[in-house]
Amino acid sequence: MLQPEEVIGDLRENGSLWEAGPGLVGLRGPVAELMRNLDRQIEALSRLETDDEWRPPAAVSFETLERAEYFASFPQWLSTASHLSGDESVLSGIAASDAPARAARNAVGRPETVLPPAVCYNTYAALAGSVVDAPVVMTAQGTCWRHEGDKLAALERGWAFTMREIVCVGAERDVRGLLDRGVSHADTLARELGLETELGVASDPFFAPTSRGRAALQRIKGLKHELVLNMSNGRPLAIASFNDHERFFGEAFDITLVNGGAASSGCVAFGLERWLLAVLVTHGTNPDNWPAIAAWSGASTE
Amino acid sequence: MLQPEEVIGDLRENGSLWEAGPGLVGLRGPVAELMRNLDRQIEALSRLETDDEWRPPAAVSFETLERAEYFASFPQWLSTASHLSGDESVLSGIAASDAPARAARNAVGRPETVLPPAVCYNTYAALAGSVVDAPVVMTAQGTCWRHEGDKLAALERGWAFTMREIVCVGAERDVRGLLDRGVSHADTLARELGLETELGVASDPFFAPTSRGRAALQRIKGLKHELVLNMSNGRPLAIASFNDHERFFGEAFDITLVNGGAASSGCVAFGLERWLLAVLVTHGTNPDNWPAIAAWSGASTE
Repeated sequence: MLQPEEVIGDLRENGSLWEAGPGLVGLRGPVAELMRNLDRQIEALSRLETDDEWRPPAAVSFETLERAEYFASFPQWLSTASHLSGDESVLSGIAASDAPARAARNAVGRPETVLPPAVCYNTYAALAGSVVDAPVVMTAQGTCWRHEGDKLAALERGWAFTMREIVCVGAERDVRGLLDRGVSHADTLARELGLETELGVASDPFFAPTSRGRAALQRIKGLKHELVLNMSNGRPLAIASFNDHERFFGEAFDITLVNGGAASSGCVAFGLERWLLAVLVTHGTNPDNWPAIAAWSGASTE
Repeated sequence: MLQPEEVIGDLRENGSLWEAGPGLVGLRGPVAELMRNLDRQIEALSRLETDDEWRPPAAVSFETLERAEYFASFPQWLSTASHLSGDESVLSGIAASDAPARAARNAVGRPETVLPPAVCYNTYAALAGSVVDAPVVMTAQGTCWRHEGDKLAALERGWAFTMREIVCVGAERDVRGLLDRGVSHADTLARELGLETELGVASDPFFAPTSRGRAALQRIKGLKHELVLNMSNGRPLAIASFNDHERFFGEAFDITLVNGGAASSGCVAFGLERWLLAVLVTHGTNPDNWPAIAAWSGASTE
């Protein structure tokens, strides 16, 4: 197994990976094709659970995240989008400046919206106030943003990265069913790609100290599991997670079951760049050694 | 033909379109499936020209845009990404605040990077300083951001929207060939979808007054064409554009031909949400009336 640093070094050297800034990766050549194939595999996997694919907004509102208690949980990651005011004199000043990038940077206004830290917040927002008579099982893929400071590392921990989620909002047993089957699908795909992974109990990196108790409780109750590839440098690479939110989002967004109780929810999440890195540390950067990725349909899990 | 306002009203009412904020659209249900089908059609179209599909970074650096003279040309659209500092006391203050969204908004730092106004800037940046011995013809799709103030309108003019580009960097005749064939492919697809479009000379909305001359020159020289659907409210909807940059980016990014001269470049760009809107104003919001979208391969243009 290669070190992730070797993989990234190779790809940088042959020009197939570069960064527009820390944690902002571009790909071209065979590795971009491999990424697209993995993307399709994971899309096919999601189709085993649902045909209801949403196209989520590129941002999530501050209000939605406040409702989800995001700011007490993960403020450290927060990434936002701003724009220049349309004020003619400000724009003219920038356009005529000798250092226009600096001038623009200084003139940008307060953030208007948040770049999504996960895909599923917009799902709960869209379902807010509704009664769920049959379980909602949806899937979506989108660019997510988490600023991890010094920990940013190409493919492993991007500022921007690609997440596919399968979300279930319904009764407790519906959610548990999705999570169990999600583990099985992800495990099958990992084995077909020749990845040596293991499933473990995990917790979210809640911001301390306000939310520390939540991480402990999450572990004790076994609410979060991750499919992990242990890299040769000792760092675990979580390529998929299986999250039981219990009634947290149902209560926060007033999503109820027909009996009047808050709905349960859970999600299965795939980090696409991490699947790519997992294949590359396992099989190397030479395309001849990559596993053949045909039109995988998850058939062997059935 | 429906008014775009009728289309958007219908979709909002049946819950299949909503916004996370002005110009930040989410889609679900049949219209999301239609969007995915159009996405695949336009991807197939791009494959008529190239198999070299890149996966561009989710952002573009201030430096790249400065090099492209972006700030003199289109400062009015500029949208940027920022993040919170990792400072423990700032984060604790937000986490413990009664109005955490407001606290976060006020604490976010100066922007670190730009949300791409177009896909192709990252292409020129990646090729900067290189010698192009054979024409580079690549395609990429990504989320682009242009803040258009009061003009934002769902699907028609998003703050964030999806752009597919096919870019050629090479000799003048390579670029002209791509643009000509691009017009033909786009026109064929539009006709197969039953869209009544016309091709016209256009110019970019360069920021005045510094760049006004460029728009005039662009029209006179016929450097920009658009495939336009004239909506029943009189507004033109440009669903694709064909852009001859001459040697502008070759010079700006020091991309040269083997003979030592600056490379020419051009791009064909598709606005995916606008193709969706074009289909919906033409055929209505009832899926029974939508054109059958099979695996279009552009065969009839060959």
